Amino acid sequence: MKIFTQLSEWNEFRLGFDETSLGFVPTMGALHSGHISLVQRCLAENEVSAVSIYLNPTQFDKASDLATYPRQTGRDLAMLDEQGVDSVFMPQYAELYPDDFRYRVSESEFSHKLCGAHRPGHFDGMLTVVLKLLQIIRPQRAYFGEKDFQQLQLVRGMVQAFFLPVEIVGCPIVREEDGLALSSRNRHLDTDQRRRASDLFRILSGSTNSEQAKAQLKQRGFLVDYVEELCGRRMAAARLGSTRLIDNVPLN
Amino acid sequence: MKIFTQLSEWNEFRLGFDETSLGFVPTMGALHSGHISLVQRCLAENEVSAVSIYLNPTQFDKASDLATYPRQTGRDLAMLDEQGVDSVFMPQYAELYPDDFRYRVSESEFSHKLCGAHRPGHFDGMLTVVLKLLQIIRPQRAYFGEKDFQQLQLVRGMVQAFFLPVEIVGCPIVREEDGLALSSRNRHLDTDQRRRASDLFRILSGSTNSEQAKAQLKQRGFLVDYVEELCGRRMAAARLGSTRLIDNVPLN
Repeated sequence: MKIFTQLSEWNEFRLGFDETSLGFVPTMGALHSGHISLVQRCLAENEVSAVSIYLNPTQFDKASDLATYPRQTGRDLAMLDEQGVDSVFMPQYAELYPDDFRYRVSESEFSHKLCGAHRPGHFDGMLTVVLKLLQIIRPQRAYFGEKDFQQLQLVRGMVQAFFLPVEIVGCPIVREEDGLALSSRNRHLDTDQRRRASDLFRILSGSTNSEQAKAQLKQRGFLVDYVEELCGRRMAAARLGSTRLIDNVPLN
Repeated sequence: MKIFTQLSEWNEFRLGFDETSLGFVPTMGALHSGHISLVQRCLAENEVSAVSIYLNPTQFDKASDLATYPRQTGRDLAMLDEQGVDSVFMPQYAELYPDDFRYRVSESEFSHKLCGAHRPGHFDGMLTVVLKLLQIIRPQRAYFGEKDFQQLQLVRGMVQAFFLPVEIVGCPIVREEDGLALSSRNRHLDTDQRRRASDLFRILSGSTNSEQAKAQLKQRGFLVDYVEELCGRRMAAARLGSTRLIDNVPLN
């Protein structure tokens, strides 16, 4: 597995694969089985695979969230190596943001709803870094999880709006046995919160409408940011203590 | 000369030139010798040439400016054909903006100065359409005039920020015999305004600082938006009647 921390080295490596199908999984590290499911699909569908590990500061609306976001680079690299990933791109801020985030991509409608209404600027930072990474990696396919369903939709929209030559592949949510959607932030949950966290999926799946789901979540001790039905999904964000969980289920 | 009004037809044409150096001149039509100088350089430096004609509505801050912007498509096409241009791309709004301008690129500092301070949203629209066109045309080189010096600098910045694989070539200002920089909007000037318009270049070149230039322009009947020294240039925007002129000269 080749690891690239410098843009020039990545660019040189990339020159060798102009005629090859390249698949790409962008991550912020702190990898779990959800990420690995994207990696495995990427490996199955492409001749060469690239994974980025970059904890993108511009998409964090809260400094405390960025400061406490789990970091485990050694473990991440071992997991990717074990999967048979060909290349890992781990850029530094100065190289990825030569403009110091002066240039950005934004979306004026959907990005302000749901998570966007509660995390100002989050989707600007996300779209901007995804555009940068897609231009650098130049994959034929890029893999995103459906857990971040709004993110997936916004990335698809950006690809269409800017005619980016990449196929965006959405991959199903991977869950713990009790239904909790895997997330790097789950490790912030204490034992009691972790036990209650699976209520989010259970209530989203079992309720008949958003209002009912919201009421049930509150009753179970969640601070609810939103529960809304959009794009054929019931989507929610809710907090247990300082940990914010998101999830979504298809509507029947 | 091949003319493409549909994206799918352009894309099919573009497939034939993957190994060829393609040069691109984006325009809003109403072509004059300034544009033609870009076209000639493009023809000299590339195996295949593409020119776009697209009056981009999202970069107009005033509806009246868009409404009165000169349109002369037949004449434009004849001029390009005479030069030996290979292809012209003339997209429709619905194809270029499948997102209806929900997704945009913005720049947070320089784009708010100079012209950006007087034309809110102008540079967002310009950067957004240039990114779209660069992604569709996929040129090795793209040609921009130095008359729109701030635009040129912002395009260069965007290319760097988003790692776009294109060389941006800035081309010198083309002037009338009396010094007036060529512009599609010059034809809005009446005889008296046209005679006085060359004062802009004369004063910018001859004055010793911005304040002096501003005072002299006012004295000569210009409504001055700004005169500022930046990036080694003295840059100005000033109005005669309803016509806004911009120009810039290198500082010694």
